Amino acid sequence: MTRFVCRDCGLDFDVMVPRWRCDCGGLLDLDFTPSLDPAKVAGRPATLWRYREALPVPEGAELTLGEGFTPMVEVELGGRPVLVKQEQLFPTGSYKDRGAAVMMAMAAHIGVTDVVEDSSGNAGCAVSAFAAKAGIRCRIFVPADNSPGKLGQIELYGAELNPVPGSREDTAAACMAAAKDHYYASHVYNPFFFHGTKTFAYEVAEQLGWRAPDTVILPAGNGTLLLGAHIGFGELRDMGLIERVPRLVAVQSARCAPLCAAFAEGADGVSAAVSGPTLAEGIAIGLPMRGTQMLQAVRDTGGTCLAVSEEAILAAFRDAGRKGFCIEPTSAAVAAGAARYAKNADPDETIVTMFTGHGLKVGDKLHKLVSD
Amino acid sequence: MTRFVCRDCGLDFDVMVPRWRCDCGGLLDLDFTPSLDPAKVAGRPATLWRYREALPVPEGAELTLGEGFTPMVEVELGGRPVLVKQEQLFPTGSYKDRGAAVMMAMAAHIGVTDVVEDSSGNAGCAVSAFAAKAGIRCRIFVPADNSPGKLGQIELYGAELNPVPGSREDTAAACMAAAKDHYYASHVYNPFFFHGTKTFAYEVAEQLGWRAPDTVILPAGNGTLLLGAHIGFGELRDMGLIERVPRLVAVQSARCAPLCAAFAEGADGVSAAVSGPTLAEGIAIGLPMRGTQMLQAVRDTGGTCLAVSEEAILAAFRDAGRKGFCIEPTSAAVAAGAARYAKNADPDETIVTMFTGHGLKVGDKLHKLVSD
Repeated sequence: MTRFVCRDCGLDFDVMVPRWRCDCGGLLDLDFTPSLDPAKVAGRPATLWRYREALPVPEGAELTLGEGFTPMVEVELGGRPVLVKQEQLFPTGSYKDRGAAVMMAMAAHIGVTDVVEDSSGNAGCAVSAFAAKAGIRCRIFVPADNSPGKLGQIELYGAELNPVPGSREDTAAACMAAAKDHYYASHVYNPFFFHGTKTFAYEVAEQLGWRAPDTVILPAGNGTLLLGAHIGFGELRDMGLIERVPRLVAVQSARCAPLCAAFAEGADGVSAAVSGPTLAEGIAIGLPMRGTQMLQAVRDTGGTCLAVSEEAILAAFRDAGRKGFCIEPTSAAVAAGAARYAKNADPDETIVTMFTGHGLKVGDKLHKLVSD
Repeated sequence: MTRFVCRDCGLDFDVMVPRWRCDCGGLLDLDFTPSLDPAKVAGRPATLWRYREALPVPEGAELTLGEGFTPMVEVELGGRPVLVKQEQLFPTGSYKDRGAAVMMAMAAHIGVTDVVEDSSGNAGCAVSAFAAKAGIRCRIFVPADNSPGKLGQIELYGAELNPVPGSREDTAAACMAAAKDHYYASHVYNPFFFHGTKTFAYEVAEQLGWRAPDTVILPAGNGTLLLGAHIGFGELRDMGLIERVPRLVAVQSARCAPLCAAFAEGADGVSAAVSGPTLAEGIAIGLPMRGTQMLQAVRDTGGTCLAVSEEAILAAFRDAGRKGFCIEPTSAAVAAGAARYAKNADPDETIVTMFTGHGLKVGDKLHKLVSD
């Protein structure tokens, strides 16, 4: 039986009852045992639901916009071929659909009728879209100074915007207050979200012929993909479908690199970093709530943390475009990290990375980003 | 052996020599015989290249950004379920990638080093992206009054913009003049483009278990998808993989509906229509060059033509959003047509349509389109 488990005190809870943290305040994970038969998977539709026995959502409760099983394409990065998952091709334009699909499927399954979330970015879009698909009312808390133009995609999906005056932290606080009475569809706290993003690992393994790559290079903002990949590859190893968990390499913008700092210092936890302006807005998280867990994922797998400069991000963005790929500037930070890593890697090393979000998310800025 | 064949005089030409029309001025088709083994296809990567024996490009000349095999999702339209191919999830954000992938693969194969095209919209983006992938120089002719913001995606892919003063027709004339010395990567004239868009039919048939739907509802601007579907379903029937070609229903904006007018009049050819302002910009083509062929495709299959109002387009756009799908207004015209058709269809009829382009293409306008 799937249960919520507190990372701090070990208490466990029924997943049929909405909950986003432990009574002690601790973060929740899922106690869940996946199973999977690759022969069965092979004939199923090309969405992330092909791994349904490995997903903590009951059969029949699937919720789909056609998401997942993104193409993995060889791209030259750092002077050598790297396998790049095309996560920008998800329905809402980012890999956040992985988490939102599974989380909102579970929310619908337990009878939730309205949800709250605090993200004006890709997570907010993904949650809004799957709430729409499920017929669930969705309220997105956003800082009041956000421009309406930036929020058009969220509005399109029919979500209500709840502007909060003050800082990004004030927005989070307002959302948490609302989460007392409403389901908190959080990409940071809700562990079902991470059991959606873990499908990234399943797809990579299947697309490599049920084999793990040596190294995976990922973004590290709130760690939704890093932690998902860690869970996913770990499950695949435990099921005997791959031999070992690949090295997980976390990339941050040098302008906001709390994980890199903690990793370099050998610290157990992550301290708050001040964020300067960066092209990689989507991963500029000064204090990731699951920082300790993120550090463990990197260390347990023999990985490392890389901080990339604004110049490297812009160069990677333009380089991707010149190769035919339209990606978000945040995504270019990961590509820059992958290029740097690849340059010094063993020639035989299988390296996987991903384009995380679509460049059309910033369509009105493309001209300036290319010409400046 | 694959050959160019003139639709007017029947002359045929070597496809290894660049050519975009006959010496007599007639439009070119391809004389090409596909083959396909569904058992072989099943195990291949989920891109349109899985149908490679049915594509007029030699083995080894494939060019890919990971395009095709788009999900087909059931969506309620007109009060009943309709199967909707998610063509907005192509790398550049529209189904035009089907045509560009195959056309540019062939161009690279015959040693082309630079191409010209006249489209400031989805076709221009698709051609630019695959030219970038192939390392081919690309020049896009656009009306001089186009705003730079609209062209950012084309610039991102490294294509050169060639602004032409005057009308849309002046732009086309300038491009045709340049096509005397350069390869014309045209989504209207180049028959390889249509042998790319035909993969839509192959995917639909495979996703239905090698069966044809009863009806397919498509956009009709220049007819790139309509004619591609007609070729594809026809080939599948000729190979015995499906029993018959589905009814092809062509949708236009009522503000620019030359095909609908010709169909209603029982004319053999299409006369120029004056285009009023429409949300469905992408299909507002006053005089489609392949109009006669488009009429034949509709009539041969027992299909029909539908013109949809601005109100219906806006309603379909918002309805799609409320269901979790972010689509272009042009795409909403097709959805509006599909909803109207579905409402009166036989309950047992299998109806397929598609979302043609991503709503993020007009990301900066979403707020206004939702709120007005």
